[in-house]
Amino acid sequence: MLTFESISKTQEFSLSLRRKGIKIALVPTMGFLHEGHMSLVKMARMHADFVMLSIFVNPTQFGPNEDFSKYPRDFEGDSELCLKHGVDLIFHPDADEMYPDLSSTWVEETILSKPLCGKSRPTHFRGVCTVVVKLFNATLPDIAIFGEKDYQQAAVIKRMVRDLNFPVKILSVPIVREHDGLAMSSRNKYLSPDERQNALAICKSLDEARKMAMEGELSSSLLAETVKLRISQAGGNIDYIEIVNSETLLPEESVSKNSLIAVAAYFGGTRLIDNCFLIHKNIEY
Amino acid sequence: MLTFESISKTQEFSLSLRRKGIKIALVPTMGFLHEGHMSLVKMARMHADFVMLSIFVNPTQFGPNEDFSKYPRDFEGDSELCLKHGVDLIFHPDADEMYPDLSSTWVEETILSKPLCGKSRPTHFRGVCTVVVKLFNATLPDIAIFGEKDYQQAAVIKRMVRDLNFPVKILSVPIVREHDGLAMSSRNKYLSPDERQNALAICKSLDEARKMAMEGELSSSLLAETVKLRISQAGGNIDYIEIVNSETLLPEESVSKNSLIAVAAYFGGTRLIDNCFLIHKNIEY
Repeated sequence: MLTFESISKTQEFSLSLRRKGIKIALVPTMGFLHEGHMSLVKMARMHADFVMLSIFVNPTQFGPNEDFSKYPRDFEGDSELCLKHGVDLIFHPDADEMYPDLSSTWVEETILSKPLCGKSRPTHFRGVCTVVVKLFNATLPDIAIFGEKDYQQAAVIKRMVRDLNFPVKILSVPIVREHDGLAMSSRNKYLSPDERQNALAICKSLDEARKMAMEGELSSSLLAETVKLRISQAGGNIDYIEIVNSETLLPEESVSKNSLIAVAAYFGGTRLIDNCFLIHKNIEY
Repeated sequence: MLTFESISKTQEFSLSLRRKGIKIALVPTMGFLHEGHMSLVKMARMHADFVMLSIFVNPTQFGPNEDFSKYPRDFEGDSELCLKHGVDLIFHPDADEMYPDLSSTWVEETILSKPLCGKSRPTHFRGVCTVVVKLFNATLPDIAIFGEKDYQQAAVIKRMVRDLNFPVKILSVPIVREHDGLAMSSRNKYLSPDERQNALAICKSLDEARKMAMEGELSSSLLAETVKLRISQAGGNIDYIEIVNSETLLPEESVSKNSLIAVAAYFGGTRLIDNCFLIHKNIEY
């Protein structure tokens, strides 16, 4: 397994692979890898000859009062996991390499990035789009894999890639959950044992709303209220609970087969997100 | 010579060239081609195996009261000129192809695009950066050529390419002038015979300022005043006259070898731009 830190070296290497007709997949991550990331690697392996995984904690997608400086990092552990799962190359640039002096160019998606997380994190998706373009141009992948826990992120990236004509196919992979249902996230590490237990209210209430919808309750406000109540009862501080069309991310008053319920809530100081389709047989874990 | 209108077809074709190790140059234009554009084609031929020229009048780089709808178009004439100068492929998409429904992604450079033309055309460079990224991803060039008449545009594009890690080398080509010195531009077509004559005040006054600087007059304000007076005397309506550092585009009080004088002025309804380095032996035409 190779590890590159330089953009120009990675780009040159990718160009040489492409000239040989070798198909490249990129799995962009912020590191502190878990089984969720490894499901992206598995998907990458299925669709490409050469799997690159990038590890970069991107400062521009964190707001001024968010957890950039304390975001967990473990390059050694990440490397072991990557080696074990057959990653071919880790791209691991530092911030000076990714944002050189007088860096002044931004990529912004202006519709899908506005609702949901975009409301409480107004500069987040601009940071995400910008770094993803930088990573795409550094690694020149044929395909790139994103996780569906960050559903809105995957939607924004797909739109950005379409709008800007990037020659990259975007695939997304279902949420991977802990044995008890909590959506896997590097941020779960922040949770105290009590918060960890209470945070199960998120996935359990989403599943409850899903069951209600499957049994015929199609009122978005009633379903959202149920989820809100359960999370609040467990001590969660809700950022948003919304039922939206999975393509447009616009609110839907009545549930259809395209309806997604998306949640962001704080347990202690930790912001967690989760989502599921409402007309769907189950939440798998 | 090939002509493609489809992004996906062009992209597929470029990928096949790249796999064969064929080096691609792109000359991005808005059409109504003249000898200025052909000097870009010549430079492209010198540095690449395959020369693509794009023709697309990009709506998003025109302001609401600018000349988008009346911008001159002559695809037949353009094709003949391209054929004569050895262009291998014209990429000629329409607006629906370049900006599909719900197009919502913008690329913006936020420092170099602010002064000079950016002041009077606040959304111009955002439109330019966005369309250039789309064109780069459609044609996947190794190098791209821009003209120095649009000096600020070339500077913004170079910065954007560096910031976003595009694997494209940007070359720029000196201004090509008519026999009497007027900088070549598709917009010169708008000028009446009188305006055409009066507009010579732009290049003549720039050359006068250059001569003064070469003879030791290094006060930016005095040189700019001279140019302002000459253009006003000729009936021109000045948008800006600025002496700036050619790297940062920031104003310079005193002229150095990196000083560029840049002008935008209206003759009749036509906005013309021109520029030259002040410590330089001559304006060539």
